[in-house]
Amino acid sequence: MIYLDNAATTRPLDKAVAEAERYLKEEYFNPSALYSVGLKVKESEQNARKSILSRFPLGYDLIFTSCGSEADNTAIFSFCKRGNAVTTYGEHSAVYECFNKLKNSGFDARFAALNGDGSVNEEDLLSLVDEKTAFVSVVHVNNETGAVNDIDGLAEKIKRKNPSVIFHSDGVQAFGKIPRKISDKIDLYSISAHKINGVKGVGALVKKKNINITPLIYGGGQENGLRSGTENVFGITSFGIATEECFKNIESDYLRIGEIKEKFREILRVDGVRFIADKSSPYILSLSAVGLRGEVVQHMMEDFGVVIGTGSACSSRKRHSRILSCCGYDDKTLDGALRISFSRFTTEEEAIFAAEKLKECILKLKGVMKV
Amino acid sequence: MIYLDNAATTRPLDKAVAEAERYLKEEYFNPSALYSVGLKVKESEQNARKSILSRFPLGYDLIFTSCGSEADNTAIFSFCKRGNAVTTYGEHSAVYECFNKLKNSGFDARFAALNGDGSVNEEDLLSLVDEKTAFVSVVHVNNETGAVNDIDGLAEKIKRKNPSVIFHSDGVQAFGKIPRKISDKIDLYSISAHKINGVKGVGALVKKKNINITPLIYGGGQENGLRSGTENVFGITSFGIATEECFKNIESDYLRIGEIKEKFREILRVDGVRFIADKSSPYILSLSAVGLRGEVVQHMMEDFGVVIGTGSACSSRKRHSRILSCCGYDDKTLDGALRISFSRFTTEEEAIFAAEKLKECILKLKGVMKV
Repeated sequence: MIYLDNAATTRPLDKAVAEAERYLKEEYFNPSALYSVGLKVKESEQNARKSILSRFPLGYDLIFTSCGSEADNTAIFSFCKRGNAVTTYGEHSAVYECFNKLKNSGFDARFAALNGDGSVNEEDLLSLVDEKTAFVSVVHVNNETGAVNDIDGLAEKIKRKNPSVIFHSDGVQAFGKIPRKISDKIDLYSISAHKINGVKGVGALVKKKNINITPLIYGGGQENGLRSGTENVFGITSFGIATEECFKNIESDYLRIGEIKEKFREILRVDGVRFIADKSSPYILSLSAVGLRGEVVQHMMEDFGVVIGTGSACSSRKRHSRILSCCGYDDKTLDGALRISFSRFTTEEEAIFAAEKLKECILKLKGVMKV
Repeated sequence: MIYLDNAATTRPLDKAVAEAERYLKEEYFNPSALYSVGLKVKESEQNARKSILSRFPLGYDLIFTSCGSEADNTAIFSFCKRGNAVTTYGEHSAVYECFNKLKNSGFDARFAALNGDGSVNEEDLLSLVDEKTAFVSVVHVNNETGAVNDIDGLAEKIKRKNPSVIFHSDGVQAFGKIPRKISDKIDLYSISAHKINGVKGVGALVKKKNINITPLIYGGGQENGLRSGTENVFGITSFGIATEECFKNIESDYLRIGEIKEKFREILRVDGVRFIADKSSPYILSLSAVGLRGEVVQHMMEDFGVVIGTGSACSSRKRHSRILSCCGYDDKTLDGALRISFSRFTTEEEAIFAAEKLKECILKLKGVMKV
């Protein structure tokens, strides 16, 4: 099987599972316990924290959460209490639906328009920010199109307009993939383990140390009182290991996957295929088999042993992608939307095989439809 | 090592880990994806759901959460919006701190007094419920003393007083241990995997089907839109298996552990040892080495290879147990508080060895202190 839906989830690294597994099998103790075997478990959690924080500028800390969505929700509901808040139409549902919820309950939640590639329209975003804006959230890498927003630049311009804005970015598709530290203009940053070959069930909200967030979950006071609940030590430990591993060759992986993506595109340069974003993360290729149904192509590809996506897995039960609709595409383009997403383990051979098969499927379906 | 802090966390079952591990290693797909390998993963999640729901009366469903605390928080914040809400001083922090948060923000949150064993004082509880009460939460088994509240009876009396009350119970220390289904007077019930030999990072809020809860986490719409975030398939699957396993002999385990606990108590019937709850869950034995410091006894016991608790792991960093304080004990009893908690895998030999060592430690420390 060739798996090319890595933006939905990735295969956990053998190393990350094997090394963390002892927290399932032997050192299963509660990390809040004060006996020595419990304290040792706590240490492993702290090591994972350090591994992750070393990928950020100095002056940040983090709370571990159960997923990227929880990190996004924690950030948003901490700061969207007064004034207004601004986000984009290109957000993952974990941000978008929070803003919708806020809007529906009467809060002044604002959405900035997108460019054709899914990146935010800078002019529109800046025009929505005013002296009452408390919070801005802009996704780092769009999870459907792969478009990369210049979050550092945007945060700087926004703070020049209103220095009291808290700036958050959903970095779930960027962390461990885009080889550049964020700048200290970013106050809060959400990440997720299972998108970088960690396991499902753990994420983190990275934050500047002086930023005070409001807990989403109250209780035993874990994570400095900011996120209660017994810590998922296995998940957290494997997150730390997965982070170490994916940063080892992050620059060369980025370049190599970029080349693979370019080859994939070359093969697909045929009539009836439309590419959504030209400049985007090498890990995500968004295209449309215009006039076909994406899910039909997806199922044909699965018969060839190739797994690809039709959009965000989270919203896969809706007909059209919300994000691509907001980019302004027509129904035929939306119908045929496909997302190919690579991991650093994707080989050129796999990509070329998949691209050839995809071309074959599309041409076959187009032929059938002409009959 | 003899591990007797099973109320803090338990060792994951080999079977539960081994059978669920394939969702880490092979079938790592996103359960929301619409290709067939994704749908298969979804199925495993649904099987776990069925396993758990089969332990409840008909007419219930559940949402998977990341822990028992999240389940408690979801229940409470769904219904404590108007009127007043009533809980007890004997709750786990995951309930207690939510009520504190509500109280601090001006909501009418009420706390019922405890009996000496940590169970709720029924008269006080009922007196706090009035025609404006929207929500009542009473823990099923107290996590520190093991006292069992008659939640079915309490819910019935409360609903006789005000039929519109939503009744929630934190069942984290009861589920898989107390061999009796809850009655349909209970609207919401929180459970946690890692307390029944599942893994950390997964819990569930079981609820009557007609009860509408408000999500704590918004996003991709997983769990019928009630709890977003990519599902922790490994954790959920192992939760299902752990549930099946712990119900297999739940009645005989209950009786056998009850006998082991009685033997433990017999050995500890010495001067200076005070038992906190006479009638309580067989899995939890709360006692005090009056006048000693619980943590000193705990560390001595660890040197003998026996792990015991001093109270709830979650609140282990405070001097005195909040719950035992509310039971009305004096400082010397509170100082010496210890919690011995068994699992169904605890053997009589282990328990007797631990009890003898505990007696030895206590007598030794008492001797030293007399010098």
